[in-house]
Amino acid sequence: MKERNRVYSGNDDKPKEACGVFGVYSTQEETNAADLIYMGLYALQHRGQESAGMVVSDGQGMKAHRGMGLVSQVFDRDSICRLPGRTGIGHVRYSTTGASYPINTQPLMGRCSRGFVAVAHNGNLVNTTALGRELVEKGSIFQTTTDTEVILNLLAGFSKVPLDEAVVQTAEKLSGAFSLVIISGDTLIGVRDPYGMRPLCLGKLDDIYILSSESCAFTSLGAKFVRDVRPGEILVINREGVHSHNLKPAEKKALCVFEYIYFARPDSVIDGLNVHQVRKELGRQLAKEFSGEADVVVPVPDTGISTALGFSEAAGIPYDIGLIKNTYVGRTFIQPRQEMRDLGVRIKLSPVEKVVSNRRVVIIDDTIVRGTTSANIIHLLREAGAREVHMCISSPPITHPCYYGIDTSVRKELIASDHTVEEIRRFIGVDTLTYLSVAGLQKAVQQDLHCLACFGREYPISISPDDSKQEEE
Amino acid sequence: MKERNRVYSGNDDKPKEACGVFGVYSTQEETNAADLIYMGLYALQHRGQESAGMVVSDGQGMKAHRGMGLVSQVFDRDSICRLPGRTGIGHVRYSTTGASYPINTQPLMGRCSRGFVAVAHNGNLVNTTALGRELVEKGSIFQTTTDTEVILNLLAGFSKVPLDEAVVQTAEKLSGAFSLVIISGDTLIGVRDPYGMRPLCLGKLDDIYILSSESCAFTSLGAKFVRDVRPGEILVINREGVHSHNLKPAEKKALCVFEYIYFARPDSVIDGLNVHQVRKELGRQLAKEFSGEADVVVPVPDTGISTALGFSEAAGIPYDIGLIKNTYVGRTFIQPRQEMRDLGVRIKLSPVEKVVSNRRVVIIDDTIVRGTTSANIIHLLREAGAREVHMCISSPPITHPCYYGIDTSVRKELIASDHTVEEIRRFIGVDTLTYLSVAGLQKAVQQDLHCLACFGREYPISISPDDSKQEEE
Amino acid sequence: MKERNRVYSGNDDKPKEACGVFGVYSTQEETNAADLIYMGLYALQHRGQESAGMVVSDGQGMKAHRGMGLVSQVFDRDSICRLPGRTGIGHVRYSTTGASYPINTQPLMGRCSRGFVAVAHNGNLVNTTALGRELVEKGSIFQTTTDTEVILNLLAGFSKVPLDEAVVQTAEKLSGAFSLVIISGDTLIGVRDPYGMRPLCLGKLDDIYILSSESCAFTSLGAKFVRDVRPGEILVINREGVHSHNLKPAEKKALCVFEYIYFARPDSVIDGLNVHQVRKELGRQLAKEFSGEADVVVPVPDTGISTALGFSEAAGIPYDIGLIKNTYVGRTFIQPRQEMRDLGVRIKLSPVEKVVSNRRVVIIDDTIVRGTTSANIIHLLREAGAREVHMCISSPPITHPCYYGIDTSVRKELIASDHTVEEIRRFIGVDTLTYLSVAGLQKAVQQDLHCLACFGREYPISISPDDSKQEEE
Amino acid sequence: MKERNRVYSGNDDKPKEACGVFGVYSTQEETNAADLIYMGLYALQHRGQESAGMVVSDGQGMKAHRGMGLVSQVFDRDSICRLPGRTGIGHVRYSTTGASYPINTQPLMGRCSRGFVAVAHNGNLVNTTALGRELVEKGSIFQTTTDTEVILNLLAGFSKVPLDEAVVQTAEKLSGAFSLVIISGDTLIGVRDPYGMRPLCLGKLDDIYILSSESCAFTSLGAKFVRDVRPGEILVINREGVHSHNLKPAEKKALCVFEYIYFARPDSVIDGLNVHQVRKELGRQLAKEFSGEADVVVPVPDTGISTALGFSEAAGIPYDIGLIKNTYVGRTFIQPRQEMRDLGVRIKLSPVEKVVSNRRVVIIDDTIVRGTTSANIIHLLREAGAREVHMCISSPPITHPCYYGIDTSVRKELIASDHTVEEIRRFIGVDTLTYLSVAGLQKAVQQDLHCLACFGREYPISISPDDSKQEEE
Repeated sequence: MKERNRVYSGNDDKPKEACGVFGVYSTQEETNAADLIYMGLYALQHRGQESAGMVVSDGQGMKAHRGMGLVSQVFDRDSICRLPGRTGIGHVRYSTTGASYPINTQPLMGRCSRGFVAVAHNGNLVNTTALGRELVEKGSIFQTTTDTEVILNLLAGFSKVPLDEAVVQTAEKLSGAFSLVIISGDTLIGVRDPYGMRPLCLGKLDDIYILSSESCAFTSLGAKFVRDVRPGEILVINREGVHSHNLKPAEKKALCVFEYIYFARPDSVIDGLNVHQVRKELGRQLAKEFSGEADVVVPVPDTGISTALGFSEAAGIPYDIGLIKNTYVGRTFIQPRQEMRDLGVRIKLSPVEKVVSNRRVVIIDDTIVRGTTSANIIHLLREAGAREVHMCISSPPITHPCYYGIDTSVRKELIASDHTVEEIRRFIGVDTLTYLSVAGLQKAVQQDLHCLACFGREYPISISPDDSKQEEE
Repeated sequence: MKERNRVYSGNDDKPKEACGVFGVYSTQEETNAADLIYMGLYALQHRGQESAGMVVSDGQGMKAHRGMGLVSQVFDRDSICRLPGRTGIGHVRYSTTGASYPINTQPLMGRCSRGFVAVAHNGNLVNTTALGRELVEKGSIFQTTTDTEVILNLLAGFSKVPLDEAVVQTAEKLSGAFSLVIISGDTLIGVRDPYGMRPLCLGKLDDIYILSSESCAFTSLGAKFVRDVRPGEILVINREGVHSHNLKPAEKKALCVFEYIYFARPDSVIDGLNVHQVRKELGRQLAKEFSGEADVVVPVPDTGISTALGFSEAAGIPYDIGLIKNTYVGRTFIQPRQEMRDLGVRIKLSPVEKVVSNRRVVIIDDTIVRGTTSANIIHLLREAGAREVHMCISSPPITHPCYYGIDTSVRKELIASDHTVEEIRRFIGVDTLTYLSVAGLQKAVQQDLHCLACFGREYPISISPDDSKQEEE
Repeated sequence: MKERNRVYSGNDDKPKEACGVFGVYSTQEETNAADLIYMGLYALQHRGQESAGMVVSDGQGMKAHRGMGLVSQVFDRDSICRLPGRTGIGHVRYSTTGASYPINTQPLMGRCSRGFVAVAHNGNLVNTTALGRELVEKGSIFQTTTDTEVILNLLAGFSKVPLDEAVVQTAEKLSGAFSLVIISGDTLIGVRDPYGMRPLCLGKLDDIYILSSESCAFTSLGAKFVRDVRPGEILVINREGVHSHNLKPAEKKALCVFEYIYFARPDSVIDGLNVHQVRKELGRQLAKEFSGEADVVVPVPDTGISTALGFSEAAGIPYDIGLIKNTYVGRTFIQPRQEMRDLGVRIKLSPVEKVVSNRRVVIIDDTIVRGTTSANIIHLLREAGAREVHMCISSPPITHPCYYGIDTSVRKELIASDHTVEEIRRFIGVDTLTYLSVAGLQKAVQQDLHCLACFGREYPISISPDDSKQEEE
Repeated sequence: MKERNRVYSGNDDKPKEACGVFGVYSTQEETNAADLIYMGLYALQHRGQESAGMVVSDGQGMKAHRGMGLVSQVFDRDSICRLPGRTGIGHVRYSTTGASYPINTQPLMGRCSRGFVAVAHNGNLVNTTALGRELVEKGSIFQTTTDTEVILNLLAGFSKVPLDEAVVQTAEKLSGAFSLVIISGDTLIGVRDPYGMRPLCLGKLDDIYILSSESCAFTSLGAKFVRDVRPGEILVINREGVHSHNLKPAEKKALCVFEYIYFARPDSVIDGLNVHQVRKELGRQLAKEFSGEADVVVPVPDTGISTALGFSEAAGIPYDIGLIKNTYVGRTFIQPRQEMRDLGVRIKLSPVEKVVSNRRVVIIDDTIVRGTTSANIIHLLREAGAREVHMCISSPPITHPCYYGIDTSVRKELIASDHTVEEIRRFIGVDTLTYLSVAGLQKAVQQDLHCLACFGREYPISISPDDSKQEEE
């Protein structure tokens, strides 16, 4: 059914995040890991809405429950009660590699020579093809199209060494972005790639250890944030406590700057910086680079909000709510048979006429991918009477695709890959268009530790030709 | 299944709105009323999430599709295509009278002596018991527990007079709040009670007439707002155009002030005032009545946002995002077996620690019903390090139940019905608690036209004892 | 979805039965009427697979649960537990009047001047149009397209007289076939029309009274068969026991002979005759009228089985299983894109080659409606090697439509309405075709009490032109 | 939900069959393998109702669709259209090994060094544990708990040899019962274990080759039966036609005799014998061994029917329908709160009182597993007035569990494993109880080629202790 209804997803024209991962380790008899994972995945839902799953270990065996859809659709009381155990991992997913099929839901679980192992993965490998080829030549067989199954098979191959050693050796073979949570026996392991591309952090609820893609999940559980897992760190949590191994360090860090710009929840703290504060700072930087005059600063909800607050403060232009988002717009919307301009935007956003009418409006958004959504938003604002519209974008133009787990579409769909800012301005129909400079961006994140490949800078990890195009199922 | 999972609805501790109604009239062959109603109901979804439905007339017969759940759950491409016709009405519902059963979904449709008639109703009658008694004594039979079926039966009784006359005579018998949309043959009729309790307005898309509870639905369709339907007005739309009848005027108007405070979407204009602007003005009034000092103004999302902006502006205290709402929290959330304080709030709201930590925080909300949610929010803020918390509420204390269609719970659940402000302040755990005064409220809405019964003022329409308690199924 | 898949229903080319009704009355605190009705409807499932429902009274109020589909699809543990009470009625439905929509599921329940009343109906009225016209002129409104709502409204109109009197007066106004079960307060009433067209019988389980369309439901519950409800009898069951009223007798009885030929379950006893035994007798009569020679008698399952046994015994030709029915064939079967002859039959029936190959086969079926299914069956038998095929039908040719609740399609679809037996024989492709004579049929049922209208004899109740065509929704 | 409702499955007390497999090979552009597999699985539905699935190859890639439930529930028009290709395999499953989880649905598909391979399996291996251990030590990882995944992994290991050679080498390592269908590239392969335990046969529809567990599926498609796949034969179907390889022959054949007694559809021909005819012969043999006198022979439907016909013929006692089966009894039936004796049987079977009352009844069934169902049936017959009841069973007593794919429950649940016939007779409550002798059974199947292990004879393939108990997930 769904396939037939043309879908106007709320975020059609936005980069898509890969996944969120979550892990729980407890030695307390009374802990129900499934309960905590359920709540954690709820808090990480923004990182992936396509499928959700968890695997829980009761020390001897493991059980999995996975499905397509939101956490609230995949799990109910029954499915959670059928997952007893104190240690477990969970995953929410937006497909990057691996087509959108039930078989590709994570975490993956398997029995190998050391018993049951389960893995959940956030990120994208860039040497999957080579690794897969090597494995199938040794007799491995792949039932899914996910990177994760490659990781699981590598892990199964290191059958003679202790678990933590096997994880280290597996991770050494991986190239690309990976934040992993792994369980085997009664051990929980967190892995973050040496570039630190995708986030991962450690929290604690009483005596229970928690790993999460973002710290926002800790607040949901009433848990405390302990620290970020460091790039290249392998964190082993078992009866003996928490121990670290370190992978060979990368030449430089390459944290994904889009976590701050767009993906992460504003209340999360990633690698020491609060996302909301970073966005406000992006807004302040953007205000410095904006040379126009205006009466009101209006965010495109939701990510534009923090940025617009910073912009308003720095520019001295009042902030106001000029666009209302219909929060009930879900994954399907039926296309009317009557032709209707801007439909995709109209069902999601409505202008507040009193705020924009006859005003010079600065509209704040985080990115422009294809440009069509932006053009539609501007059309709505003009229809509502805006006298001038100045668009300010809190990231530099995206000119290059990401191979590390962010689905910024193929290159030819990136409007900035073959159009000048002036051309984009005209396409979108704004009076001025201001992109944040790379320098401004770097100032806001206060560090020189980020991957800037999608803005045309060097790809920190080289991509093999085989992996530069998506595999089909 | 759902009944078993304990539900943490996002708005458990808020007044519940009755319904939204929507109607379409077109003489153009190519109009698919169902498409337009679908989009209109999507835009009115915030007015009722329990069920949705529409009835479309093709001039000869009528077809209905109704179901439990959101608009996106009730309708798909197939169900819409099975509703051909140019004229129709739609409804979204949150039960006030009429238990939450499929049979009670609206619009109601029936065949009577003049052929098919369908009615959708927003509001609550206060003389249903008497009307129903009269009807059953004449031989009527009621298959639902809705006011709407009473209206339909009254209408069927006036079989000898023209349709518009029958609607007038029916409406004259009704006491209480009612905004109705009615279709019969190829006529669309809108009715608003003489007190104007519930809103209703007229829009136009090319040559198509539209009736809607709120103007926000017009923007979704690219339609123009024409005007509000006046209290006591009966608007008849047919081949001859738009004609009005007027019911006997009420002594005074009694528009529901909660449409501005809480229910309506900020982009709607109701009875001449934009909701977002009214909320900002409520914030400004509230700031005048707030005597404390603070470092930051933080809204409880979503309705607190506009109000907080006005407050911040008038009080000269910076506005910031201190609470993040998890927009994925739906109707069901599974209660964890592990005890967890403030769970209901934690899954929905998270504090941004950097914003509130070590600060004196003014927190802006629209109402306090039972007080438990407020107490939990305050606990979260304190846990995140807020030094002082001052709560400002953009309505006066709700001391009396509403009988006109707003489910503010029974009296004994209204904390303000038997506790002083100081007692409530202590219960909630804030340093100061400021309710907007009735005078301040009236200034913000700039008119003396509103019902203030729930704040302890006179009930504008007297309630019979039979109707003062909910009927059970 | 389902509507799009072309449906090969198992009984596409058979008359369709209207409904089954079931009622329970108990004075014992511990009786759960819903449990018993559930089991009773399961046993009556063959009488209607389109929808199922029940209404249970707890003495004060009533609750209903109804839905589209089989009993096992409509009810689960939860829905049954939400229907507390000692008295109730149930219904399974195959639409005759009333289009196949959820709103038309039965029993219908309503509140009228005497409180809640619920009605379930098996049969078809022939004066609905006139009754409906009368009612809407008095102000009634119809929300469904069922006869049952007319009955409910009539009943509500007799508000001044005791319940049993109201039922008598209502029934006196009805013309056509009707077996009704009605509850109001704590009274259960069974009604059978004066012609006795549709069956209804009384059973007892300990102190619990049961009404059922067929006695087979008693066995399922371990209840005892007490007696048939007599044509024209109104059976009132309440605290004072069981009492009868009698409607004005019909000139002659007109029991539906198709209950024996095709509809009823073989283990049921209807009006004193066991269905299986009647079918065997039909087979014996048919054998007398068959003049050919053959090697084996093969039934078309399932109804042909009993008949074939009688035929075999009387004709002295061995009985064998020559066609196997796939019992998993449900309501939907997806049409293959590859052309395939006889598909509708192939998925449902397979010949046993060893039984029919090189043999002279007598194939026994109960009716021929359009003839296409029969032709396909014969083709299968010939393909499996049958040397001769002689078809024997245990009813006379159906030449006229039924207006009393059996959906034998419109007249032009009845092959026997405008073709001779010889033409039909050639169309079907058999060596000989023998229909049972009307005289033979009457001998088998041992009485002159049956309606023979569909075989071209007099319609026992005259039909108004308005009611001779199906109403559309 | 379903898990909570106590289930009265129609066949609770019967041996459970493992699976049905089906394969299609075509070189014709216009063939839609998915359509044919869908119809084939429909015809094999009796072999497994727990899950269904298919994998189709378009020559380059493969696509799978699998799900829990009946064929009609798992597939719809959309899912079939998303499986383009001319070659494919399908599977229906009743779990024997591998718990009843979605992940265990078949066919399994994987990518290995030779590209995509898919396998569907009927039967049960007895050396899975050893094979699995060997594989995981080499680094394999198992994501399901099925034998089939072991087979898939073995196959992937033979990466250097041609496909048919790899299948031969894989099959040589397998011990136990296995009928396999395999696709890789555009080749379809059928494999039958050297003992021939589970059936497999070859058919042809025009130029399309078909493999099926039973020949009944050919009739559904209008295809011709070509021949049985021989025990130990590997049938390779590709562009060059059909070629055979032969596995090392077993010392003796060990066809499963229960295919004839109970599992297979009566219209199937297995290893040269028509199932219906074998059952009639079983009835004739049983009649010879029955020494009592009786008035009527009554089958327990459905499998008892053919047997009873043979019995009646040989014993000269009339055959009649004494028990009616409710064909609507599905997988769930809600247990009533009211205590009810024999409920499980009552909802499924009803006696025809006129047939059994005051008669000496021979009741024919195929097996007794736990004995409880038989006891309940007898109670129903006695309640209906049977004067004497003589039970005749068309198999010898089942005293030993099956390890080759038939779920005859664990030994302690087999009533005949520790009770004499006399004890069982008394438990069931019959006047006499006659089991068919092993000699009689062997005469009916006319060959000394069958496995008789469950009747206490030698297990043809020895079982390792590891595999004698079911693995848990």
